[in-house]
Amino acid sequence: MSRPFPSRRPHPAFCVGLAAFLSPLALAADPPPVPYPEGYRQWAHVKTMRILPGHPLHASFGGIHHIYANPKAMAGYKAGRFPEGAVIVFDLLDASEADATVTDGARKVVGVMHKNAKRYAATGGWGFEGFKGNSKTERAVGKDAAGACYGCHEPRKAQDYVFSAWKD
Amino acid sequence: MSRPFPSRRPHPAFCVGLAAFLSPLALAADPPPVPYPEGYRQWAHVKTMRILPGHPLHASFGGIHHIYANPKAMAGYKAGRFPEGAVIVFDLLDASEADATVTDGARKVVGVMHKNAKRYAATGGWGFEGFKGNSKTERAVGKDAAGACYGCHEPRKAQDYVFSAWKD
Repeated sequence: MSRPFPSRRPHPAFCVGLAAFLSPLALAADPPPVPYPEGYRQWAHVKTMRILPGHPLHASFGGIHHIYANPKAMAGYKAGRFPEGAVIVFDLLDASEADATVTDGARKVVGVMHKNAKRYAATGGWGFEGFKGNSKTERAVGKDAAGACYGCHEPRKAQDYVFSAWKD
Repeated sequence: MSRPFPSRRPHPAFCVGLAAFLSPLALAADPPPVPYPEGYRQWAHVKTMRILPGHPLHASFGGIHHIYANPKAMAGYKAGRFPEGAVIVFDLLDASEADATVTDGARKVVGVMHKNAKRYAATGGWGFEGFKGNSKTERAVGKDAAGACYGCHEPRKAQDYVFSAWKD
């Protein structure tokens, strides 16, 4: 029996060409979502900073932030280059000032940098995401990583796009 | 040959009595020194607080402190009672304020609570020590743990003498 509608089957060479054409675009437009960094509160604490009113980043990052690193990211801080699977968390909380103390208030966002050179090639090999408040699913960045995150991180190429540094 | 100066040998009952009298005093005066908490910077980060001028503890604890817990202490925070070997670190640094940010400055003291119920029975089962600046050997507390530390921690008996609490 002959095959029906042979004319509707594309030529194999066309398929290869189409795949080559679509593949980079698809990767750039839709990198897989950055996973929530489960257990980061018990990772190593890299540093803490408070950003006060008047700072140029206050609107975005005002409050207290703690930086946490998973073991692969710890190796990266020491080596200067971060290996695949390195994850750095930017844990941003309100600053709560009372009785001559300042402590952590409510969580604003859990920012994440997740190293995967191939998956996130368009943004320096890092996936960027922000999880709102205490949610593990509500995403603040999504497909806007290039504009919302990478734009500021790009000048730190010599530090593998990372701002923080480890200090014993 | 008869013993010379038999009258100078104390009666055995006196020796037992003296030992019983001295022993608790000796223990109270000289508990073994609290070891330096090697590697604490990579332990879990429990919390951060800044103590400002005007706070009643500012003279002693002004600046930024981070609390770190070893894995046994982490189990203690979750259980409400801390097991033998639990170590909690109070890492006190100057607050460095510049360009609308506040960050860690120079290290002032590394305070330590080290759980050993028998060794530190006189101070709630916790040994207390402070290591000055970045030194692992210069001790700020030494034999003064009861007055310098335990006096303030004693009212926290219901929390196993610990002030901080874990929060995810």
